[in-house]
Amino acid sequence: SVSLLGNTKTNYPETYAPEVLEKFPNKHPDNDAWTTFVCTEFTSLCPMTGQPDFAKIFINYIADKDMVESKSLKIYLFSFRNHGDFHEDCVQKICKDLFKLMKPKYIEVQGDFTPRGGIAIFPYASMSNGSKKYEAMKDARMANYSPGKYGMDLARLY
Amino acid sequence: SVSLLGNTKTNYPETYAPEVLEKFPNKHPDNDAWTTFVCTEFTSLCPMTGQPDFAKIFINYIADKDMVESKSLKIYLFSFRNHGDFHEDCVQKICKDLFKLMKPKYIEVQGDFTPRGGIAIFPYASMSNGSKKYEAMKDARMANYSPGKYGMDLARLY
Amino acid sequence: SVSLLGNTKTNYPETYAPEVLEKFPNKHPDNDAWTTFVCTEFTSLCPMTGQPDFAKIFINYIADKDMVESKSLKIYLFSFRNHGDFHEDCVQKICKDLFKLMKPKYIEVQGDFTPRGGIAIFPYASMSNGSKKYEAMKDARMANYSPGKYGMDLARLY
Amino acid sequence: SVSLLGNTKTNYPETYAPEVLEKFPNKHPDNDAWTTFVCTEFTSLCPMTGQPDFAKIFINYIADKDMVESKSLKIYLFSFRNHGDFHEDCVQKICKDLFKLMKPKYIEVQGDFTPRGGIAIFPYASMSNGSKKYEAMKDARMANYSPGKYGMDLARLY
Amino acid sequence: SVSLLGNTKTNYPETYAPEVLEKFPNKHPDNDAWTTFVCTEFTSLCPMTGQPDFAKIFINYIADKDMVESKSLKIYLFSFRNHGDFHEDCVQKICKDLFKLMKPKYIEVQGDFTPRGGIAIFPYASMSNGSKKYEAMKDARMANYSPGKYGMDLARLY
Amino acid sequence: SVSLLGNTKTNYPETYAPEVLEKFPNKHPDNDAWTTFVCTEFTSLCPMTGQPDFAKIFINYIADKDMVESKSLKIYLFSFRNHGDFHEDCVQKICKDLFKLMKPKYIEVQGDFTPRGGIAIFPYASMSNGSKKYEAMKDARMANYSPGKYGMDLARLY
Amino acid sequence: SVSLLGNTKTNYPETYAPEVLEKFPNKHPDNDAWTTFVCTEFTSLCPMTGQPDFAKIFINYIADKDMVESKSLKIYLFSFRNHGDFHEDCVQKICKDLFKLMKPKYIEVQGDFTPRGGIAIFPYASMSNGSKKYEAMKDARMANYSPGKYGMDLARLY
Amino acid sequence: SVSLLGNTKTNYPETYAPEVLEKFPNKHPDNDAWTTFVCTEFTSLCPMTGQPDFAKIFINYIADKDMVESKSLKIYLFSFRNHGDFHEDCVQKICKDLFKLMKPKYIEVQGDFTPRGGIAIFPYASMSNGSKKYEAMKDARMANYSPGKYGMDLARLY
Amino acid sequence: SVSLLGNTKTNYPETYAPEVLEKFPNKHPDNDAWTTFVCTEFTSLCPMTGQPDFAKIFINYIADKDMVESKSLKIYLFSFRNHGDFHEDCVQKICKDLFKLMKPKYIEVQGDFTPRGGIAIFPYASMSNGSKKYEAMKDARMANYSPGKYGMDLARLY
Amino acid sequence: SVSLLGNTKTNYPETYAPEVLEKFPNKHPDNDAWTTFVCTEFTSLCPMTGQPDFAKIFINYIADKDMVESKSLKIYLFSFRNHGDFHEDCVQKICKDLFKLMKPKYIEVQGDFTPRGGIAIFPYASMSNGSKKYEAMKDARMANYSPGKYGMDLARLY
Ligand SMILES: [Ca+2]
Ligand SMILES: [Ca+2]
Ligand SMILES: [Ca+2]
Ligand SMILES: [Ca+2]
Ligand SMILES: [Ca+2]
Ligand SMILES: [Ca+2]
Ligand SMILES: [Ca+2]
Ligand SMILES: [Ca+2]
Ligand SMILES: [Ca+2]
Ligand SMILES: [Ca+2]
Ligand SMILES: [Ca+2]
Ligand SMILES: [Ca+2]
Ligand SMILES: [Ca+2]
Ligand SMILES: [Ca+2]
Ligand SMILES: [Ca+2]
Ligand SMILES: [Ca+2]
Repeated sequence: SVSLLGNTKTNYPETYAPEVLEKFPNKHPDNDAWTTFVCTEFTSLCPMTGQPDFAKIFINYIADKDMVESKSLKIYLFSFRNHGDFHEDCVQKICKDLFKLMKPKYIEVQGDFTPRGGIAIFPYASMSNGSKKYEAMKDARMANYSPGKYGMDLARLY
Repeated sequence: SVSLLGNTKTNYPETYAPEVLEKFPNKHPDNDAWTTFVCTEFTSLCPMTGQPDFAKIFINYIADKDMVESKSLKIYLFSFRNHGDFHEDCVQKICKDLFKLMKPKYIEVQGDFTPRGGIAIFPYASMSNGSKKYEAMKDARMANYSPGKYGMDLARLY
Repeated sequence: SVSLLGNTKTNYPETYAPEVLEKFPNKHPDNDAWTTFVCTEFTSLCPMTGQPDFAKIFINYIADKDMVESKSLKIYLFSFRNHGDFHEDCVQKICKDLFKLMKPKYIEVQGDFTPRGGIAIFPYASMSNGSKKYEAMKDARMANYSPGKYGMDLARLY
Repeated sequence: SVSLLGNTKTNYPETYAPEVLEKFPNKHPDNDAWTTFVCTEFTSLCPMTGQPDFAKIFINYIADKDMVESKSLKIYLFSFRNHGDFHEDCVQKICKDLFKLMKPKYIEVQGDFTPRGGIAIFPYASMSNGSKKYEAMKDARMANYSPGKYGMDLARLY
Repeated sequence: SVSLLGNTKTNYPETYAPEVLEKFPNKHPDNDAWTTFVCTEFTSLCPMTGQPDFAKIFINYIADKDMVESKSLKIYLFSFRNHGDFHEDCVQKICKDLFKLMKPKYIEVQGDFTPRGGIAIFPYASMSNGSKKYEAMKDARMANYSPGKYGMDLARLY
Repeated sequence: SVSLLGNTKTNYPETYAPEVLEKFPNKHPDNDAWTTFVCTEFTSLCPMTGQPDFAKIFINYIADKDMVESKSLKIYLFSFRNHGDFHEDCVQKICKDLFKLMKPKYIEVQGDFTPRGGIAIFPYASMSNGSKKYEAMKDARMANYSPGKYGMDLARLY
Repeated sequence: SVSLLGNTKTNYPETYAPEVLEKFPNKHPDNDAWTTFVCTEFTSLCPMTGQPDFAKIFINYIADKDMVESKSLKIYLFSFRNHGDFHEDCVQKICKDLFKLMKPKYIEVQGDFTPRGGIAIFPYASMSNGSKKYEAMKDARMANYSPGKYGMDLARLY
Repeated sequence: SVSLLGNTKTNYPETYAPEVLEKFPNKHPDNDAWTTFVCTEFTSLCPMTGQPDFAKIFINYIADKDMVESKSLKIYLFSFRNHGDFHEDCVQKICKDLFKLMKPKYIEVQGDFTPRGGIAIFPYASMSNGSKKYEAMKDARMANYSPGKYGMDLARLY
Repeated sequence: SVSLLGNTKTNYPETYAPEVLEKFPNKHPDNDAWTTFVCTEFTSLCPMTGQPDFAKIFINYIADKDMVESKSLKIYLFSFRNHGDFHEDCVQKICKDLFKLMKPKYIEVQGDFTPRGGIAIFPYASMSNGSKKYEAMKDARMANYSPGKYGMDLARLY
Repeated sequence: SVSLLGNTKTNYPETYAPEVLEKFPNKHPDNDAWTTFVCTEFTSLCPMTGQPDFAKIFINYIADKDMVESKSLKIYLFSFRNHGDFHEDCVQKICKDLFKLMKPKYIEVQGDFTPRGGIAIFPYASMSNGSKKYEAMKDARMANYSPGKYGMDLARLY
């Protein structure tokens, strides 16, 4: 009797799939603005032990001509599900793949990974388009970093 | 270039629409279990002022033969969006519509409405199938009520 | 240029005014339900020092034939603004005035007053219609009391 | 018997209505000051799926000659209720409509949207009057952005 | 120039002073009600080391004919400031002194002491008037105890 | 140069694998005790959309003769990673698989799933060994259920 | 029997009374220091509707030759109790009245007003003595403003 | 120049040392009271991996003739520091060692262990003196268990 | 039977005693580092009313050649217990006494005092060694002050 | 029957063991990035009393050519378990040992130690490679320090 809804299964890729990322033109390229994506449910596999890792991923960027399409980003992030990589490399990969896709003025990625045996690891990476203004922004944000600073307390969501 | 996703617009009803509710058979009718739905984004209209009201709605029930299909419940709850009703009546309506649909052993609905000018209102309603066991459960839960008790701190969600 | 809105000043009484309370018929007198009012902004005057006192007031009741109209309740509670009374007496007065108005099956009032010089006072009063069921409910809730129990953490509101 | 109150229905527009915004003269144009509006109950429709979106909207501005009238702002924000737009575009629209109305020295708008399927999106936009001082302020605030930074934990409200 | 106020020094006793406690008649002896006092700033001295101890003290009671006057209670609690006693004995003393003063139907005292070197101690004591109803209440509350249960999260105060 | 550690990859099963569960004898079968397992990182797939679901899973049980080995439980829970099942069925499966393995006096499973599009679902299931004492325990816990009650605020963990 | 205490009623003014403010000489005029006053219980009246408004008021200042006497400040703030003024004007008035009284090097006032119908307003105003150092401080603090930034989470108080 | 203090090293045992526990007579054996000890800094070693485990330990008991001396308890708990034992066995050992020492009317021990690789374990054990009253208390508390229930949120400590 | 422990009473001074402060040489004078002391249990007496005041005191400093010995600091802070002084003067005294003892490169003291009758006062004072670098640090920290900023949420301690 | 898992005991050193630290080459030496390690379960011994101390340790660094291997870091941190050292010296040692191992561009270590008798101590140390850029970063971070700033609220982890 579940007739109304028509849930159609999305075809989620089985492993790391940067090719699913899609972009669309920024309607306001003349006016800098921040867009933040929070993936509350990121998971990958530890390449040493095969054990699943879990994290909250924060992506903050200032678009130039292009923006990443949000559902393709979601599928892309979920493609790490069965992919084995270290915490730092996941964060670097996400940063580079999105930079390559959009060529933003500035982008940064922060991963808040849950602890393993009394130790938690939080990586943070960033890239700019190399212009003076955004390279300076990158340096300043790097200099002011503290763990979790470029993310947000998720208890504020509801 | 947004080709991958295929977002298809759901046809959301324009006002209060109990007819969208759908059910399916409970696979475990012999073993009582609780199912809780939390609608974090309920909104309706105040019939006195026309102003929007907002609430978190908690629905807790013990199924008998049937269960409510979750996406139809979502569409149903969203159908209050342009509907004018008092807080207490919204909660009563949800309780009665779901009871009529599923004939559960027990059901309760709690609405945590946001304040208006220094006053907040939280209604709570419940129904049982009238059997001795579930009527007693209804009375006991009624007797132990405190505001927010049959809901949950949403800051725990992430 | 503020033409759209038409704010019309409500005529707030200058002091304690139980006569402003209004009621309307309960549409569901056959089915017990709880209604909770939270007044986040209660203030009165200390009769000893003349200093303002502040509290959160929680009113929980199970209606019988009548219910209190919410805006009249708001005006009533605001009428304590320039009224001098002890914490315990404010709570008792609210409980008795509402019982007299509505004749509910059960009603309770909890006041969470902010501290004065390292001491905070929380009074709690309740009344039933004297029937066996609701007198038992009153006794049981009294026996299970702890400070703040019949209220709610207001950090959950938004 | 609800005679005291005289609730008069406001005529809420059915869809996006920038024309309802009203302004009044700033009494202190010589002394910069911040005014913040928090709309705790913003809702719009997703243009892709038709599904309702929910957000907290923070508007921070430094007035010049004019200020926005608060009740007209409320009605304006509620006019997005049945309007279909992406998160980023809602935030941009609000920023531009208010800039056009008031010509403030500086204005910024932050939207904390609730998650959809494991992904939350927070857009942030800003505009200055183009003078050296406020353009520099805009750049500095842009450079120091982190998600939620120009908003506030609403658990502090009560 | 501090002319307006007229601060008059209260004569605080130098050590443990149960004789400062004062009572006044309960205006509602026919209707059981709870009164809670929270002393957020209790301090005494450790009899073993001479080091200061700090606690939050919760006093919950159901009055019979008499009630404790709140400012005398405050002075009484502050009289432990230079008094040397173990945590458990402070709590017992407070419980017994107040019982002796007021002869309440029921009274309980909970002390949430701050930790010393990785260990915190929370004592809880109670007394009833010995009647069947309140002795049963005492037993039931004792049976349902958990640490901090008969107190309250003070983060709720403001 | 990573010589010290010797990380050996555990062989995680690719999908739902109840056969990995292992047990060992309870050393204290004469003295009832609760053991709680919290899996903070549970994930499965939605059978309707193929999208990953995330939850915190709480397992509370009173052992009889056997106890579940904790690392095998971890591998078992992680085996849902690529398995498609509804929220309620995951919780039921976990409850039944563990009951079959250990034959405990009582067991319950609670799943706190993160929201999807404004709706969150929390299922709760339980089983007893059918003896009078534990069947009564099951009924009482069922009657006192509220969402999240048999779990715990994970913000307390560190 | 309340003999010990001698509560003497302070003569609180009935409406806005800047003349009650008193000052005393700063003992350390050579060494800049911040003093913060938090009024957790500010209330005034809305000039449009007559309805009471509630706020937390934060006053931060660096004294020059004079300091405000704290009890006179308290009486002054309480004098807004029956005074009708907009949120922004209350904050401006407090800032100007205190500047006029003390001539501090720098002063700022932040008002965290509770919401009305889904909208909360937070005004922030500041003044310096016009010297280069404190005018620069004023500009920098203005440039770094975010809602609530110059206040504090009151849940930290106990 | 650190002359004042005279820190004298306590002779902490190198491994599990129940013999350090000391007791003293209960001054109030006629009046039941709860004493709670919270050890915020418990650590032991995992017998499988040799890795340190960390927990908060809550001990709640109703004394009969004897009470445990608090500093000897602290040294006893610290003696697990280099001792290898499973979570459940640590909790059982503490419960039994204290029961053997004091012969209390009732005692319970709860261990909140920090997670290992996505799984946390919380054991809970209890013992009574076998009399009807305390055996019933034990059964009732067992029946009402939920994880963390007989402990307390340590964020309340300061 | 409490033989193990040998608690020796420290000789706590009866009133304000700066002479108990002791110092020892900084082992790392060439490498700047911050040391923070948090006194969670500071209490003094109000010189106007004789009433006890309570605060959390945060002391942050960068040592030069000498450091304050922590137990002597504790005894020093406890010596304010029976000392009458205004909030601002306690903070200034602590700052000056420690500066005089250690001659640090920089030191600051923040006092978070609990409210009295709806008003809380937080003083903040600082001193540098007068060199260009640390005088600039002092000015910058002064310019960036907000209430509580140089302290920390104590709910993070456990 | 625990056959599946193959727990192999790691050989944890009995005391302070900097020689266990291992490094591996940084794959991205051209692109500065932060890596944060949080040790939620650090413990050492007080050299004055022999009593265990507990802390959360935050390590933030920007790698140059080498990075520390995470499991060797864990074993290294656990090697402080039976090592006697003051809080400040533990933090300095960790900072220097890691600097010696990796020669990072910048590294800082923050220790949040739990209180002892009403006083908590938080040390913070940092080192740079001496180049102009990172020496400036070190100075700026030093100048902007507040207690806990370069750590994170661990309640955000789950
Ligand atoms: Ca792969
Ligand atoms: Ca919230
Ligand atoms: Ca309708
Ligand atoms: Ca009156
Ligand atoms: Ca439209
Ligand atoms: Ca004495
Ligand atoms: Ca609050
Ligand atoms: Ca499968
Ligand atoms: Ca006036
Ligand atoms: Ca606190
Ligand atoms: Ca041993
Ligand atoms: Ca051993
Ligand atoms: Ca003195
Ligand atoms: Ca914590
Ligand atoms: Ca050593
Ligand atoms: Ca959380």
